Amino acid sequence: MSTEPASLQGLTKSRIEALSDGIFAVAMTLLVLDIKPPAVIQAAALPRELLALWPRCLSYAVSFLMLGIYWVGQHNQFHLIRCADRTLLWINIVFLMAISFVPFSTALLSAYPLQPSAQTVYGGNLIAIGMILLWHWTYATHRHRLVDPELDDRMIRSVIRRILIGPALFTLAIASSSFSAVASLVLYVVAPLIYVLPGKVDERWQRSTH
Amino acid sequence: MSTEPASLQGLTKSRIEALSDGIFAVAMTLLVLDIKPPAVIQAAALPRELLALWPRCLSYAVSFLMLGIYWVGQHNQFHLIRCADRTLLWINIVFLMAISFVPFSTALLSAYPLQPSAQTVYGGNLIAIGMILLWHWTYATHRHRLVDPELDDRMIRSVIRRILIGPALFTLAIASSSFSAVASLVLYVVAPLIYVLPGKVDERWQRSTH
Amino acid sequence: MSTEPASLQGLTKSRIEALSDGIFAVAMTLLVLDIKPPAVIQAAALPRELLALWPRCLSYAVSFLMLGIYWVGQHNQFHLIRCADRTLLWINIVFLMAISFVPFSTALLSAYPLQPSAQTVYGGNLIAIGMILLWHWTYATHRHRLVDPELDDRMIRSVIRRILIGPALFTLAIASSSFSAVASLVLYVVAPLIYVLPGKVDERWQRSTH
Amino acid sequence: MSTEPASLQGLTKSRIEALSDGIFAVAMTLLVLDIKPPAVIQAAALPRELLALWPRCLSYAVSFLMLGIYWVGQHNQFHLIRCADRTLLWINIVFLMAISFVPFSTALLSAYPLQPSAQTVYGGNLIAIGMILLWHWTYATHRHRLVDPELDDRMIRSVIRRILIGPALFTLAIASSSFSAVASLVLYVVAPLIYVLPGKVDERWQRSTH
Repeated sequence: MSTEPASLQGLTKSRIEALSDGIFAVAMTLLVLDIKPPAVIQAAALPRELLALWPRCLSYAVSFLMLGIYWVGQHNQFHLIRCADRTLLWINIVFLMAISFVPFSTALLSAYPLQPSAQTVYGGNLIAIGMILLWHWTYATHRHRLVDPELDDRMIRSVIRRILIGPALFTLAIASSSFSAVASLVLYVVAPLIYVLPGKVDERWQRSTH
Repeated sequence: MSTEPASLQGLTKSRIEALSDGIFAVAMTLLVLDIKPPAVIQAAALPRELLALWPRCLSYAVSFLMLGIYWVGQHNQFHLIRCADRTLLWINIVFLMAISFVPFSTALLSAYPLQPSAQTVYGGNLIAIGMILLWHWTYATHRHRLVDPELDDRMIRSVIRRILIGPALFTLAIASSSFSAVASLVLYVVAPLIYVLPGKVDERWQRSTH
Repeated sequence: MSTEPASLQGLTKSRIEALSDGIFAVAMTLLVLDIKPPAVIQAAALPRELLALWPRCLSYAVSFLMLGIYWVGQHNQFHLIRCADRTLLWINIVFLMAISFVPFSTALLSAYPLQPSAQTVYGGNLIAIGMILLWHWTYATHRHRLVDPELDDRMIRSVIRRILIGPALFTLAIASSSFSAVASLVLYVVAPLIYVLPGKVDERWQRSTH
Repeated sequence: MSTEPASLQGLTKSRIEALSDGIFAVAMTLLVLDIKPPAVIQAAALPRELLALWPRCLSYAVSFLMLGIYWVGQHNQFHLIRCADRTLLWINIVFLMAISFVPFSTALLSAYPLQPSAQTVYGGNLIAIGMILLWHWTYATHRHRLVDPELDDRMIRSVIRRILIGPALFTLAIASSSFSAVASLVLYVVAPLIYVLPGKVDERWQRSTH
């Protein structure tokens, strides 16, 4: 479908991007619905009840940042993808289905922060998002199907390595959750920070756009 | 109103598309609010309680994909529609009213997956969406009112046949729900897969855009 | 501020329109959260419980259409407004504040369809939206402040008359609610239909854009 | 990164703006979910119960206006920022994280309008938003990093002073909340009005765009 006229290609890309921006915006904002004002009887107990909300606030911050990371990741891919086809469209819709699931898996982790099964669902959700994003990229770049034929292979591989950091960390977190729930939680908090700090891909990205 | 200047036509179309993308994004993301972390007393019961959420997760996936399908369908029609008029605008708003109803009908099916009345509301909602989309298409293409005069009649009929697959399957699902609730559920799961797989319309679509 | 360069004018208008489209999309979709699957004990009671949801479904349809009408109304005004200024921006934000309130007033009317106080809040919300939209229009058109100097005065007055239909009907609905709650409800249902049917403004609108 | 080609710069800016508009729209509309129809047993009690909702309605109005103010503030900054870089992107995502938190802090203040701890969380949320917006501006304008080299230094400082009004008022509100909860509440209501009224920055803004 790389033979579609330029106008249609741009249209399809901008369509998917508009729906994606909307779904990311709603999913990121719905996260806060999981933090509810405490129902206290005595006013004196309110400060203590508010402090007890910290696991929910931490889950909120981690999930918000991870969604931000995936939003940046999807947009960066689209920046290098010249045109979309039917398969890419449906990979995107499956990707968005996993994104929309994050408010649930976050609420679950907030409610049961130290339970292995809750950590597994949360980690599994984030791994699924990472793997679909990887599928999106390998589909688009396979034989330079939907990207610029000039696009550097090292760049393509750098993006792959970067995407895999998340699923690798979250697999480690799930594996360690049965031994130490705390170690597992630390991994979930560390993961977004690794992405937010600038790395090699960013340098290449920047160079490739010059 | 097909005599409106090009600038207005584009404006009206892009307006409707912006509102539609927003409503689709919100409706698709609200579906997850129906899946709630289980309120368990014993931690050991959490994995079992999570597994018990599968009917809600299945409803989530089916509804998300169906909304994705209708989003693609509406956009594909707009790609071939040259300009919008007042009637088309209001058909779209009624269409969006049926789209926004899906989070309710999905929550109902999740709560009562084997009840004929719940299946009828869910199926009726999806049939209504399909029929409004058909109305949208026949209104726009009647005597090539709002589409390119050159648009192939076989293409117009292919789109009609494709839209009718959904209502046909969902009518069958409703009819069979009083005999076998399971057979009915299977039809709801199969329906989105038929649309996601590529078909004849896609080929024509692609050809028509060359 | 009508002396701002064209680029800024377009930017300001498109900014406000993007936020408006988002708020309208969310408000319209949140309406459905008010319709909840019934919590029934016996499966046999489900069909009856579903039928009992009709007042909520009617409120949903009326509010969705009214929001659609106001969305069309705001966009039509923006189509004729050449540029935005600071005052117009803040009139819009107050307008959006009243729009965002509709999911509450609708939920209230759904819960107490025959109570005069609930009908007054609902009607008052819709009257407020109409009056802010009127303020928006009279501010923009006063001495052709923000509109084309050539814009026909009859067109300006037609728009005013059309906007006033809603507040007039809703004032009548509130006034009659203490005598006959049913008569009042009928007015709420009739109001959107009057707007959806084409009228004189539409004809002028169409002519003015040629 | 100010050496990126123009096309990428625009793209990055419009991306961030699209996500921001979505998150602002959802956060502003979610505020209303905090106002719920009262559950009354006797119909005669409904008017009194509705009047008792005024603190929630006031919180709704103040938070909606404050979000509107920050939305205008972020957009005004983007209007003067020529291009975005990686750091600016992440400052924005942290900014949006604080914006998305407002529905929670508003619900908390609505539930406990006279409790110092609730007022501190609400004020702290608004101070955080203001300080991140300040960080956004000082990062972008430091040595004219991401803004026009010609941009007037007085303009840059005016914007800083204007941003600081909010955090200053909210710090005062938090400090006074332990002495007089009412005085503190008055400050929260006055703050948005100061921003909505036109000031010196607006004049400079307007001049700078000519």
